[in-house]
Amino acid sequence: MADYKAPLRDMRFVLNEVFEVTKLWAELPALAETVDAETVEAILEEAGKVTSKSIAPLSRAADEEGCHWADGAVTTPAGFPQAYQTYAEGGWVGVGGDPTYGGMGMPKAVSAQVEEMVNSASLSFGLYPMLTAGACLSINAHASDELKAAYLPNMYAGIWAGSMCLTEPHAGTDLGIIRTKAEPQADGSYKVSGTKIFITGGEHDLTENIIHLVLAKLPDAPAGPKGISLFLVPKYRVNADGSLGARNPANCGSIEHKMGIQASATCVMNFDEAVGYLVGEPNKGLAAMFTMMNYERLGVGIQGLATGERSYQNAVEYARDRLQSRSPTGAQNKDKVADPIIVHPDVRRMLLTMKASNEGGRAFSTYVAMQLDTAKFSEDATTRKRAEDLVALLTPVAKAFLTDLGLETTVHGQQVFGGHGYIREWGQEQLVRDVRITQIYEGTNGIQALDLVGRKIVGTGGAFYNLFADEIRHFTATATASADLAEFTKPLNDAVTTLDELTAWLLDRAKNNPNEIGAASVEYLQTFGYVAYAYMWALMAKAAQGKEEQDDFYASKLGTARFYFARLLPRIHSLSASVKAGSESLFLLDAAQF
Amino acid sequence: MADYKAPLRDMRFVLNEVFEVTKLWAELPALAETVDAETVEAILEEAGKVTSKSIAPLSRAADEEGCHWADGAVTTPAGFPQAYQTYAEGGWVGVGGDPTYGGMGMPKAVSAQVEEMVNSASLSFGLYPMLTAGACLSINAHASDELKAAYLPNMYAGIWAGSMCLTEPHAGTDLGIIRTKAEPQADGSYKVSGTKIFITGGEHDLTENIIHLVLAKLPDAPAGPKGISLFLVPKYRVNADGSLGARNPANCGSIEHKMGIQASATCVMNFDEAVGYLVGEPNKGLAAMFTMMNYERLGVGIQGLATGERSYQNAVEYARDRLQSRSPTGAQNKDKVADPIIVHPDVRRMLLTMKASNEGGRAFSTYVAMQLDTAKFSEDATTRKRAEDLVALLTPVAKAFLTDLGLETTVHGQQVFGGHGYIREWGQEQLVRDVRITQIYEGTNGIQALDLVGRKIVGTGGAFYNLFADEIRHFTATATASADLAEFTKPLNDAVTTLDELTAWLLDRAKNNPNEIGAASVEYLQTFGYVAYAYMWALMAKAAQGKEEQDDFYASKLGTARFYFARLLPRIHSLSASVKAGSESLFLLDAAQF
Repeated sequence: MADYKAPLRDMRFVLNEVFEVTKLWAELPALAETVDAETVEAILEEAGKVTSKSIAPLSRAADEEGCHWADGAVTTPAGFPQAYQTYAEGGWVGVGGDPTYGGMGMPKAVSAQVEEMVNSASLSFGLYPMLTAGACLSINAHASDELKAAYLPNMYAGIWAGSMCLTEPHAGTDLGIIRTKAEPQADGSYKVSGTKIFITGGEHDLTENIIHLVLAKLPDAPAGPKGISLFLVPKYRVNADGSLGARNPANCGSIEHKMGIQASATCVMNFDEAVGYLVGEPNKGLAAMFTMMNYERLGVGIQGLATGERSYQNAVEYARDRLQSRSPTGAQNKDKVADPIIVHPDVRRMLLTMKASNEGGRAFSTYVAMQLDTAKFSEDATTRKRAEDLVALLTPVAKAFLTDLGLETTVHGQQVFGGHGYIREWGQEQLVRDVRITQIYEGTNGIQALDLVGRKIVGTGGAFYNLFADEIRHFTATATASADLAEFTKPLNDAVTTLDELTAWLLDRAKNNPNEIGAASVEYLQTFGYVAYAYMWALMAKAAQGKEEQDDFYASKLGTARFYFARLLPRIHSLSASVKAGSESLFLLDAAQF
Repeated sequence: MADYKAPLRDMRFVLNEVFEVTKLWAELPALAETVDAETVEAILEEAGKVTSKSIAPLSRAADEEGCHWADGAVTTPAGFPQAYQTYAEGGWVGVGGDPTYGGMGMPKAVSAQVEEMVNSASLSFGLYPMLTAGACLSINAHASDELKAAYLPNMYAGIWAGSMCLTEPHAGTDLGIIRTKAEPQADGSYKVSGTKIFITGGEHDLTENIIHLVLAKLPDAPAGPKGISLFLVPKYRVNADGSLGARNPANCGSIEHKMGIQASATCVMNFDEAVGYLVGEPNKGLAAMFTMMNYERLGVGIQGLATGERSYQNAVEYARDRLQSRSPTGAQNKDKVADPIIVHPDVRRMLLTMKASNEGGRAFSTYVAMQLDTAKFSEDATTRKRAEDLVALLTPVAKAFLTDLGLETTVHGQQVFGGHGYIREWGQEQLVRDVRITQIYEGTNGIQALDLVGRKIVGTGGAFYNLFADEIRHFTATATASADLAEFTKPLNDAVTTLDELTAWLLDRAKNNPNEIGAASVEYLQTFGYVAYAYMWALMAKAAQGKEEQDDFYASKLGTARFYFARLLPRIHSLSASVKAGSESLFLLDAAQF
């Protein structure tokens, strides 16, 4: 496996040249205080170092070793505890955390880059701080000041970790039917009892304490999703002076044996009258959980990109080194027995597909992160509302599309290696196994697509969609003034028109048949994703244009933009044709006829 | 994991109703002697039993256990030796073998069904008899009568196994640069020395002896692919009386740790002056190897389908059982907390994509197998030539397209399980890991696509292509007479027209730029595959039509055909648009700019 190199040049390009992010920050007083270009530069440099030097080298061996479970205790692979301490001491767990409680207060547009780096270094490792940050978001948004003061500082500092306990054996997508119970106690606390599965970081040896956020039902709770409350359940109870108290009966019954992310402990958690504290209001637990959902879902999308980036770096190195056969246009490497495989058109097609997906994903996730920052920090209600609506619209796309392309990317990256891609020591197959979870957890990509089409498109009568489509049209109208950009803006405009028509078709069809939403959803989301990436690639081409002579980086960027429009964007034709075939053909068989 | 059930009903439908295969056999005297409908029925039944009862139950545990290497010896997982003995005693290793030497003499159209079943049961297991059968094909076609008599009977009987030793560390796709040497000896034998990697079944504990077919270079051999010869190198030399003699220095140095097919021993083989015998003529080794290549490549395609079939069976069972959320059109299962997930449109989309891919693949691989049978057994030169050309054209499509869809299918099958799909005990993730090798070995799918486009399309000036396209057009012209079939024949005709245009475009472009072949190849092959499956689905619809009232099987078949045309065939639009974007965008970056 090649050494991981943090793609800082491209991150700077996206932040500073494509989106001119400091302009946004200047408009948001809370950010203007905490972040400037110099700080961000230092953060990118340092995060690049810690992830490439302390974490990335552990990834391959950690996959082989996996986590160990014995008598309820979980041991992470060799090197993880030390690396976690280094990471925590750098303040990286709290990079996006509230400065009131010791967080670094960075906007999501910055912490997104850190997330990419840590997940490129090791997806398994990256999950521990990610779950902690997610738990902190919910606590900070919904818990009492007392709970916040008691828990957030140590969580941001990485001294304690967090976990999110949602799924039960019979209840994954359908959280309305969970059975975990919470009994109110005289002192205002609750006793939480039940079994949760698939709990990432439910138990491990990285931190002194683990703070579980648990969905459970109060005794008098109504049935379904409106009867779910959220509880903070620490592994060790915390004394009034902040020291650790009694061990709570929140125990890890076993860990799962999985396809990948072997170094991430996926736990069965048994709560047996564990002491917990209500976070937010009774029966509003799902809403409290959804506070962090948009951040987490974007983070999972970034995991898809991060894994794809690692695979790409390996594949490019291999394709430059591996000698096999001759270029179709004649030997390029006459003094050797064969040419490097990067001369072959199909190898280039795979590498460029990877590169275009990763760089498009980096721009798109940063764009969505900027909407999250605007929604959180803008002091103008209209601006905030627009950003919130865009976040609602684009989050399921970011989660599902970046991870779908993460699978495609890592599969290409494995294929470039030929037979060696299937051998574990080369590292490429691990990335396929690792990234596959990102399409499944945090709401499967099918669920993301239902969220997009059902709630965000049909549910708003297309209003959220129009915000985004109008922004693209505004860009193409303005940018087309530059004749040099027409090669990008014209196909982008055509693609938006295709998506407009598809959206209108869908809004119309969904009126009469509730099955149309689910029948269209996944392929609609992918069409949307390719159009959104076309917007990103046009923005990047604009930022790169005119500079291609001065720096290879810009020449490469423009070449990749051309590849995207020529070879990837056409995928929308088939996707939209399949959507428009409608739901009929999905219902010709009854369940017994499958 | 659900119990594996051999899909005998569909195999019978394909053989008897779609292709009326006994009519073909009646025209081929050699087959008319060995095979009839009754024999085939018995074979399907028995193969279904042995694969589902003796092999399939081992698959999950064998993946966990893997193979063991110690001091050059390889131990296969628990149960494999006994199961292999059962399989061998049933005559299944020699099911397609030459009756002169004890083979069962079944046509490929029949042995293809057996291959599907054994690979559904366990891809790792299925590789051992497959490699043996492949070695037998080469030996039977090219070795001396003496070698044939000495080796084939025990190999067909499964008492000895075979291996194919091609790849070296620096030479995979590019076999012209291998370094293994063969020194002629006074007695007419050779001493073979060199290192081979990725040797499936190079060493194991399933049989008394292993017969390696090894590519090596004679001392005076010309450079490149025209200087390669093929040698038979037994693990134990065989005495004149047929008993086993001295151990040959053909040793397994280690086994690979892989993504999947853990129970298949992938060996590094060291030959150190091992005694070998020339198979075929000096320097014609690649040609001798290619004799079995079309059979093996079709077999690998069938592995893709086989793995997809296993995943589908599991996914359907899970989708009928798992209760989660409600149908979009209202609760279907009012006495339970939720509906089975098979009510959800997107789950149905995934299941139908799997079903349409598997059944399309079964029909297509049987169709190609019938061409192989015609090419081998027809006594009419014109008929034989036509079949040979079709085999040449369709084999790379079968290998690559069936395995590409195998990955898509198993990924859907995993996704249907949600989080449980990622957990090893459920078995679905194993199928993804296992099937991934089928896109890589036996010539990567990129190499298959180059073979199709470079040799079979451009290399014949489109002549082979026209054979196939004309056959489809003849079918649509005839079948369209039946108004009921127009819903299938019209889009099939349109699809062939799309492929005609793409082929003509490619033939034209390839004249001026040798890079166009590789730039187009993978997506051209996929377009071809979808059109070929459309032909299969139209043939199947024709065979099912009118019977849908009498049997659910036919109703299901027609419904799946409609799904294929509505939701999968449109994929050709994007693929052909990407092909027509040409090679330019692949060459805008130089190697350093990636």
